[in-house]
Amino acid sequence: MYDVNAIRADFPILSREVNGKPLVYLDNGASAQKPQVVIDAVTRAYSQEYANVHRGLHFLSNLATEKYESVRAKVARFLNAGSEDEIIFNSGTTEAMNLISYAWAAPRLQAGDEIVLSVMEHHANIVPWHFLRERQGVVLKWVDIEPDGSLDPQKVIDAMGPKTRMVCVTHMSNVLGTVVDVAAICRAARERGVVSVIDGSQAAVHMPVDVQALGCDFYPITGHKLYGPSGSGAMYARAERQAEMRPFLGGGDMIREVTKDAVTWNDPPMKFEAGTPGIVQTIGFGVALDYLTGIGMDRIAAHEADIAAYATDRFKGLNWLQVQGNAPGKGAIFSFTMEGAAHAHDISTILDKKGVAVRAGQHCTGPLMEHLGVNATCRASFGMYNTREEVDALIEALELAHDLFG
Amino acid sequence: MYDVNAIRADFPILSREVNGKPLVYLDNGASAQKPQVVIDAVTRAYSQEYANVHRGLHFLSNLATEKYESVRAKVARFLNAGSEDEIIFNSGTTEAMNLISYAWAAPRLQAGDEIVLSVMEHHANIVPWHFLRERQGVVLKWVDIEPDGSLDPQKVIDAMGPKTRMVCVTHMSNVLGTVVDVAAICRAARERGVVSVIDGSQAAVHMPVDVQALGCDFYPITGHKLYGPSGSGAMYARAERQAEMRPFLGGGDMIREVTKDAVTWNDPPMKFEAGTPGIVQTIGFGVALDYLTGIGMDRIAAHEADIAAYATDRFKGLNWLQVQGNAPGKGAIFSFTMEGAAHAHDISTILDKKGVAVRAGQHCTGPLMEHLGVNATCRASFGMYNTREEVDALIEALELAHDLFG
Repeated sequence: MYDVNAIRADFPILSREVNGKPLVYLDNGASAQKPQVVIDAVTRAYSQEYANVHRGLHFLSNLATEKYESVRAKVARFLNAGSEDEIIFNSGTTEAMNLISYAWAAPRLQAGDEIVLSVMEHHANIVPWHFLRERQGVVLKWVDIEPDGSLDPQKVIDAMGPKTRMVCVTHMSNVLGTVVDVAAICRAARERGVVSVIDGSQAAVHMPVDVQALGCDFYPITGHKLYGPSGSGAMYARAERQAEMRPFLGGGDMIREVTKDAVTWNDPPMKFEAGTPGIVQTIGFGVALDYLTGIGMDRIAAHEADIAAYATDRFKGLNWLQVQGNAPGKGAIFSFTMEGAAHAHDISTILDKKGVAVRAGQHCTGPLMEHLGVNATCRASFGMYNTREEVDALIEALELAHDLFG
Repeated sequence: MYDVNAIRADFPILSREVNGKPLVYLDNGASAQKPQVVIDAVTRAYSQEYANVHRGLHFLSNLATEKYESVRAKVARFLNAGSEDEIIFNSGTTEAMNLISYAWAAPRLQAGDEIVLSVMEHHANIVPWHFLRERQGVVLKWVDIEPDGSLDPQKVIDAMGPKTRMVCVTHMSNVLGTVVDVAAICRAARERGVVSVIDGSQAAVHMPVDVQALGCDFYPITGHKLYGPSGSGAMYARAERQAEMRPFLGGGDMIREVTKDAVTWNDPPMKFEAGTPGIVQTIGFGVALDYLTGIGMDRIAAHEADIAAYATDRFKGLNWLQVQGNAPGKGAIFSFTMEGAAHAHDISTILDKKGVAVRAGQHCTGPLMEHLGVNATCRASFGMYNTREEVDALIEALELAHDLFG
């Protein structure tokens, strides 16, 4: 049985109040809260086990290095990567996407080469490709979503032409909750020699992920959304792609030898990890992954599917609320606007007074907002610790907002 | 009075033992330990005050944003920057140097343009310039140090010719402890239209820094060396330089608007901060700066000068130890090799058995090692909490190593 109350008890912040009301935290799409085991791991690292990694030989440095490096295998197992050498540590998905852009794409793509992407990508999976457009004439080819918010994989596949070099698609929309059949897209990409970048920032939080089964080339995940510390992250990068990548960030650790006239590089994945890394954040990230796998991603997915179904049902009763996207199998992420000209920011302010934390704005998805014809939405994004009662609290607060603005 | 024992009591790790001996932590040049107030700030942030920053309107997001953004002014005060808009947050000095390289230098420097740098730079202040050499034909012009390990500012100034565009020099050597008269270098650079990059990663830990008095263009500092969390950092970047910089990392937060066909950028410094930042690390970094300024950087400098003088004196008694560098006014960083063919790694292993944590290796300074004619050194680097008794413990452990290997 999935004991959501026991899980909630593991997250100290969930027992606090906000504006005199129990916190109902529905901003997990932006960042998730942290279980006590993660907080304890961070505290222990700083209090008893801290030193810089890799370059020391003393006890604390060896200890920190061992703890830090052990996370690579945890990430590999979490994503079912073939080897832990296919895991590159970073500070989050933004850095990961820029690594792909600067290290793989920039030295390789020519003017006129195409990148295919969907209109519901996050800015982290858009702006690095805009750099290539601005700086070297790469063409961005956009694929629209369907009216229900789903993305037809065949349309993505059809958009790949002879000049397409990369396809960049999210596994799960951070605005609509849409889950994309990326396996079909990756398979078609591979047949055409197109490199696939799958944004796993949301999906990896809500479902089991198997990068080998997906067949993608790159799959970044975000530590702070995965109940780990801020500033932590990692990316699956297929070994063949890593072998093609030039270095991106230069500094210590990523080199083998530096002289006045030359530099030689460390082997991948270290070649792509420059300077002192996020030591303690990464150690905490590993503990977060242990916590998730201890519960089971399939069970988390089942719990959240129940929440999604319940919320969908409750939203149906509010005919003055426009929920964006109802793709089959969508995750528990709901974006909405309200009739009566209430701005998303005003709605979120009312909800906040009731202790309900949602996000209002563009959610880093300018092209999607344009496609939907809205300036902004409110977004309630659920996580492993949310409950049906919190859906009720959201609905109640929305009804209040509707009374005020309607 | 500088109460070093009271300060030591603020750092929980300093009361632990290593290999059955009290920890003597002399690896501060690589990373420093954290006071309880920093650890508590991190714990509190995750336990009670966590959310993503900037994009939310709910209580926790506003609270986290306020705490996070307040650190910008703290860094500005710490470095005496003219405006907090001249402070760019990052994950450490390696990212900062790469930002300068990719955002300011790469679009601006031509083949044949020169970068002047000293042979004692850290790889973080070398490899990003090697990228420019490899990728666009920029010439690196190296300035040697003097036999005592000092860097003659006039030699750096003389190396600046009509093709010199940047000068990249450390404020304090991470290997020799040499303090460089960077004000003279920056003044000369400014007269010649040369941009100055001063690596403050070590200096800012050990002395008061005033970037306006130095007159530099860029001055990165490293949070985890400043007794703050891993993965934290910031850089002073003169407003005129920021205005010249194109974006580096692309993603959320650094944009104003993203459409399918175009992107417009946020104002500096946000233009150079992409994606979810190191929220909690940065908050903890601010607390570390408060802790340092509460004690006073001048008093910390005076304490460390006493330690440096005492250590210098004690090292003089060991005629089988070669200490590298004895520049006047050097900081409490000592690199050494031992007669009798003992490798630096073997020495550090012996010291570790006695609880004395030092680093052995190249210290990310390949060109300096080449210049000194050594493969590696042992380095004992002191911090605000180290004592004369710990110098004695180091000397005693070195004598043991000498007995074993001599």
